[in-house]
Amino acid sequence: MSTAAPTQWKTLPAPDSPRSWIERAAEVAAILATDAAARDKAGATPYTEVQLLKDSGLVTLLGPAEHGGGGQDWTTAYRVIREVAKADGSIGQLLGYHYLWNWAARLVGTREQWEHVEAEAVRQTWFFGGAVNPRDTDVVVTEDGDDLVFTGAKTFSTGSKVSDVTVLEGVLEGTDQHIFAIVPSDSEGLVFHDDWDNIGQRLTESGGVTIDGVRTPWASAAGYVDKEFRPRVYNTLNVPTIQLVFISFYLGIAAGALETAATYTRTKTRSWLHGGYDRAVDEPYVIDTYGDLTAKLWAVEALADAVAAEGQKLHDAPDEVTEQSRAAFEVRVAAAKARATEVALEVTSRIFEVTGARSTASAEGLDRFWRNVRTHTLHDPVAYKRREVGRHVLTGELPEPTWYS
Amino acid sequence: MSTAAPTQWKTLPAPDSPRSWIERAAEVAAILATDAAARDKAGATPYTEVQLLKDSGLVTLLGPAEHGGGGQDWTTAYRVIREVAKADGSIGQLLGYHYLWNWAARLVGTREQWEHVEAEAVRQTWFFGGAVNPRDTDVVVTEDGDDLVFTGAKTFSTGSKVSDVTVLEGVLEGTDQHIFAIVPSDSEGLVFHDDWDNIGQRLTESGGVTIDGVRTPWASAAGYVDKEFRPRVYNTLNVPTIQLVFISFYLGIAAGALETAATYTRTKTRSWLHGGYDRAVDEPYVIDTYGDLTAKLWAVEALADAVAAEGQKLHDAPDEVTEQSRAAFEVRVAAAKARATEVALEVTSRIFEVTGARSTASAEGLDRFWRNVRTHTLHDPVAYKRREVGRHVLTGELPEPTWYS
Amino acid sequence: MSTAAPTQWKTLPAPDSPRSWIERAAEVAAILATDAAARDKAGATPYTEVQLLKDSGLVTLLGPAEHGGGGQDWTTAYRVIREVAKADGSIGQLLGYHYLWNWAARLVGTREQWEHVEAEAVRQTWFFGGAVNPRDTDVVVTEDGDDLVFTGAKTFSTGSKVSDVTVLEGVLEGTDQHIFAIVPSDSEGLVFHDDWDNIGQRLTESGGVTIDGVRTPWASAAGYVDKEFRPRVYNTLNVPTIQLVFISFYLGIAAGALETAATYTRTKTRSWLHGGYDRAVDEPYVIDTYGDLTAKLWAVEALADAVAAEGQKLHDAPDEVTEQSRAAFEVRVAAAKARATEVALEVTSRIFEVTGARSTASAEGLDRFWRNVRTHTLHDPVAYKRREVGRHVLTGELPEPTWYS
Amino acid sequence: MSTAAPTQWKTLPAPDSPRSWIERAAEVAAILATDAAARDKAGATPYTEVQLLKDSGLVTLLGPAEHGGGGQDWTTAYRVIREVAKADGSIGQLLGYHYLWNWAARLVGTREQWEHVEAEAVRQTWFFGGAVNPRDTDVVVTEDGDDLVFTGAKTFSTGSKVSDVTVLEGVLEGTDQHIFAIVPSDSEGLVFHDDWDNIGQRLTESGGVTIDGVRTPWASAAGYVDKEFRPRVYNTLNVPTIQLVFISFYLGIAAGALETAATYTRTKTRSWLHGGYDRAVDEPYVIDTYGDLTAKLWAVEALADAVAAEGQKLHDAPDEVTEQSRAAFEVRVAAAKARATEVALEVTSRIFEVTGARSTASAEGLDRFWRNVRTHTLHDPVAYKRREVGRHVLTGELPEPTWYS
Repeated sequence: MSTAAPTQWKTLPAPDSPRSWIERAAEVAAILATDAAARDKAGATPYTEVQLLKDSGLVTLLGPAEHGGGGQDWTTAYRVIREVAKADGSIGQLLGYHYLWNWAARLVGTREQWEHVEAEAVRQTWFFGGAVNPRDTDVVVTEDGDDLVFTGAKTFSTGSKVSDVTVLEGVLEGTDQHIFAIVPSDSEGLVFHDDWDNIGQRLTESGGVTIDGVRTPWASAAGYVDKEFRPRVYNTLNVPTIQLVFISFYLGIAAGALETAATYTRTKTRSWLHGGYDRAVDEPYVIDTYGDLTAKLWAVEALADAVAAEGQKLHDAPDEVTEQSRAAFEVRVAAAKARATEVALEVTSRIFEVTGARSTASAEGLDRFWRNVRTHTLHDPVAYKRREVGRHVLTGELPEPTWYS
Repeated sequence: MSTAAPTQWKTLPAPDSPRSWIERAAEVAAILATDAAARDKAGATPYTEVQLLKDSGLVTLLGPAEHGGGGQDWTTAYRVIREVAKADGSIGQLLGYHYLWNWAARLVGTREQWEHVEAEAVRQTWFFGGAVNPRDTDVVVTEDGDDLVFTGAKTFSTGSKVSDVTVLEGVLEGTDQHIFAIVPSDSEGLVFHDDWDNIGQRLTESGGVTIDGVRTPWASAAGYVDKEFRPRVYNTLNVPTIQLVFISFYLGIAAGALETAATYTRTKTRSWLHGGYDRAVDEPYVIDTYGDLTAKLWAVEALADAVAAEGQKLHDAPDEVTEQSRAAFEVRVAAAKARATEVALEVTSRIFEVTGARSTASAEGLDRFWRNVRTHTLHDPVAYKRREVGRHVLTGELPEPTWYS
Repeated sequence: MSTAAPTQWKTLPAPDSPRSWIERAAEVAAILATDAAARDKAGATPYTEVQLLKDSGLVTLLGPAEHGGGGQDWTTAYRVIREVAKADGSIGQLLGYHYLWNWAARLVGTREQWEHVEAEAVRQTWFFGGAVNPRDTDVVVTEDGDDLVFTGAKTFSTGSKVSDVTVLEGVLEGTDQHIFAIVPSDSEGLVFHDDWDNIGQRLTESGGVTIDGVRTPWASAAGYVDKEFRPRVYNTLNVPTIQLVFISFYLGIAAGALETAATYTRTKTRSWLHGGYDRAVDEPYVIDTYGDLTAKLWAVEALADAVAAEGQKLHDAPDEVTEQSRAAFEVRVAAAKARATEVALEVTSRIFEVTGARSTASAEGLDRFWRNVRTHTLHDPVAYKRREVGRHVLTGELPEPTWYS
Repeated sequence: MSTAAPTQWKTLPAPDSPRSWIERAAEVAAILATDAAARDKAGATPYTEVQLLKDSGLVTLLGPAEHGGGGQDWTTAYRVIREVAKADGSIGQLLGYHYLWNWAARLVGTREQWEHVEAEAVRQTWFFGGAVNPRDTDVVVTEDGDDLVFTGAKTFSTGSKVSDVTVLEGVLEGTDQHIFAIVPSDSEGLVFHDDWDNIGQRLTESGGVTIDGVRTPWASAAGYVDKEFRPRVYNTLNVPTIQLVFISFYLGIAAGALETAATYTRTKTRSWLHGGYDRAVDEPYVIDTYGDLTAKLWAVEALADAVAAEGQKLHDAPDEVTEQSRAAFEVRVAAAKARATEVALEVTSRIFEVTGARSTASAEGLDRFWRNVRTHTLHDPVAYKRREVGRHVLTGELPEPTWYS
């Protein structure tokens, strides 16, 4: 990948509408696409790619306009993630997680905290990572005067290694209280294991991290006032908000797979020698397969867009979020997740049927789409998403807010 | 079905927002639902049901507000069709076809013509039927002075028998010009064959009709000025507009099936005697099935809503419709049709797995949902819808406007 | 249906090989097919059809050759059921249940009992019905001297009304012992409710029955010696044996649907007017659909045949059946049931896509295949079949013998 | 992989029944399985693996018993391929191609030729490779006295590099006659490109080869007598015979995936933290998925077994093969290929849903199953297999014998 972002990004005004932001994301994607397969194979730490996200302005898309941020809302952010993920699923995921960690200040923090974080994030073009995995409970937070000290380890720390700041999460010693805080990613005491070697989403730097006495002021503990947590229903939007991030890059990867395959079919696939067609694009089974996969993908994209708009209403009025409205959103997100998972897997596996035998050459790298989707869609079992929806439809049950529902 | 529409419909003001119109449609549906299975079996001509559509105001939903119509657009009309079809697929189809025949004046006619038709339609609460089947070309239109005379037969005449006015279509003798005109449905010369006896959509009065010298003034030939047709691209929106009508009642039928099944599961289905659950609603396979079907249905509903909104932009500026914008709409509709067909068939067949053996009693009538969807989704081969989408995605080909694409 | 069986059946020797028996079944099917749709609609009690089964010799297919029976084994019986069900799912079911009730003597009875029953059954060409529904436990058996008296009711009594003898089942008063006995179907005290009115398998006379003091000698209680039951593992083969009967008529119905549809496509379906093909049989989507459905059906047929052969080894050496070998058979049957259910539903619903809109005419009756499969596949939840298979594969668990596993 | 085959293979008598040969194959598979994931990643030339196939005796399974071969038929060969492919899809493919190349002498050659080849093959434990790709026509055969000289290149030469002898194929100069001959794989003039770097079946050495003047006697041209080819219908069994080889290793790979996954689920997968189950093997969705996938796989296995048995009848009487019987076999094979492809893809993609997020670690190598199936199932478009079946069912058309049908 050329490390240089287009010059005009620095001289032209930033995008100022959802459409223009999505176009900007498409420009970023075009750059990423030029060597996406090769970078996937190499698996190098994506410093350059993150810099591209910064140069393009995408990193501050959600940031407050008065501080120089894009001032966009989540509906645009989700579309931007999709666009980037078309070219590179890993970078789409990194960008999406960044948005969530950045937004976490607003979800969990006090107004003073999140206003401060968001202003700084824009001013310094922070890229966010996280070391938050609620299934591990082995980070302990101890008090030391006015400070908190985090000690322990996390199995996953997506993006943290390539980020400016990292969201830490741990349990306050002697309590069952979770505490979140933002620390510099180059804090002494943060040691990355560089052990993310999985079949997909290979550039997400999702390996483990040791947290060895990382210190931060009590005042930075998100949502705490006088050392006491102030819960509100809005806090629990973290799950549907991040799950829509997931959905966004699944759909982006699937769309990227379909576009990449279509280009291949048009330019490289040979029609079948006993089929009676001169061009692969005229083969009925090829046409039918593209028609079928496209229709399936469009349906899930429409659902994701609709659900994002439903969620945006909650983000627009955080103090009016009720258990009912939160649950209605969560259930819709769960349905979208179920569909996005199934369709993205189908698209990324079936494209080969319309690109043909030679498209399995490693150099083409067409399997990365399936590997990427297959890997991240296991984040939490999709069967439990269907369960949320089914129970809600059958008995009206509201999903209990957990880290995954 | 009680023939009496609720009294308050006559005394209260008409609905005045999309939401309130959809609520009105839901009230209509609730009335239709009380004996939908029995009426399906009886297969009687739906005079009462059409009267209910009139009493409820739904018939004039699209009519101009200045003449007393609802003044709504197609996005609401589609939702209203869905709502009615939840309870009764046939009546949903009748209402949808009515909207299209009524709107056909605007699609094909001159401004003077459609303004006249729409005003009259509202003032007289016309219910529209049609005798238009382009695969039959056996209606001949002859000139007789200032009149046109239609003679021949059509295999299908959905709703015409229960309508006030009927859209006729025929070929002008000695030409290949199609002519549309609206005539009173009780015109002497219109003889209904009453031969619609199919496995589904049994109340749509879709049987054949003989047209024996039905006369109408030349001036009423839609879109003709001085006996010459004035074509415009907007004319060709008839196909995507009616196909979205189809999609609407497919989705309504599927949603009705799922709701009816859920009520059955909650109230009648026994948990399996060797399963270890006390209630059917706690069986994992039951929950999973409802979750899966709901997610699938929601995705197609979202796509249908999105495509309806895209189409509305074209309806809002009919003279700006281009071949490109028409084609983009048509392809999206084709994709929605493909998905609606597949999902509605799956939902209506699989509901039985979660209602159980006794739900196959004829008295329950749960098979009508599948029979209804199965019947109408054959209107034109869904494989050709996938073909439109596939070709467009692969080669950018625009679907040629025909009666089906 | 012509009531006359072909004359040559009476003069020619009976079939003497599996192949010739299957041919005989095909001849029966050809007769049933001539008016299957009309008979399905009429729903009359199938006296004539049962007589045809007797005249053709199929009724005594499994009967001992030394008494004049066919001397065939279950692998042939299953194929014969499939063949008959191609034309008429109800009659296929009646024949299959007959085989099972007849065989029940051997499954549960003492050698003396079953030898007697089988000899009489052949000599008198008995057609068997049953009033055995283990989910109802409301038939009580009381002792009266050397007799047993059955009193109560059963919700389902498939075939009993058109049979010569009926297998009764009840619980011995004061115990939890089930007792089976064969009684004349015209016994005073057996009152059929004639209340089977379901959407499918309409000719199976599966309605309820009241059993009002039906008397039979203690000596006829199957498997009892000196009023004590002699259990053996072979008894528990009743479930996999009857479930393979179910599978057989599901597959027969599906094959019949596919053949009937293919004939329709060849002779009546029009090619699509904008497709560019002269004949429907040349449409790529039509060819693809037939190819896909046929391949799916063939796979399940092959599995059913393989499992039938595995089961036959157990029937051939009933005293060597172990819990392990019984469980292995049961699990394989469960898998076949799962596949047969899914594929038969898919085939019977999708045939319409390749027959077209006019094939939904009620007179064609093409929906009966789906209605038949849909109705009986709910006999017991197929999800529990997958559960048996999944548990066995994962943990080696053997399905516990119940009335359904 | 330990290079040492078990000592007892050398001292014990060879297997002497289908069952014992399959057991031997399972022993080979167990050795291959120990490091299959690592060997897949390394992608080294499989010399050791081929030696294992020789040591185990599998290489001469089909060889005539009188010369020391196994004397088995194709039904056993297919099962053996499946067994080996469970552990290593590449080695299963190599073994299957070996069987076909070896058998090609019998398919195409004169009796004298194939008797000689089969005797030598057993005596010298030849492993066969091939440079036969009918879509390339760039190998020319020229005459030089009593010799033939092959010159040109082939894009694929599966197994040739690791083989003892290679089947060459080319077109006789000035004719359209194809000539097959067997030459030593270390012939000067055979230059392997070592360019097979694809996403799956990575150890099959399927790269290109240059054939630079490879000389062989005219007398070795398969099926030629006095320089004239003696065609017979049996020649055309090459396609269904090799396609059943493909099916065999697809099914083996799928079965291996399912077994490997089940072991993972039992030993490593954690139950879901909000699911209420202590063990993953008790999760309903896990059980259901294993049940569903197992049932699907069993059905295709049964079809493959049935079709193999049907084909064996043709192999047993090669001179009685007719166009009809050949076509019936080909169509059945096509159906089995369609099902094997679809099911193997589904199994190998869905196993992850029941192994969970951590199973995507590269070190586990669980993606190799999907990559292997995905790669080879593109050998020729499966859509054309469905087409063969569909046409045959609809119109009775027999597939024309080509290199692919």
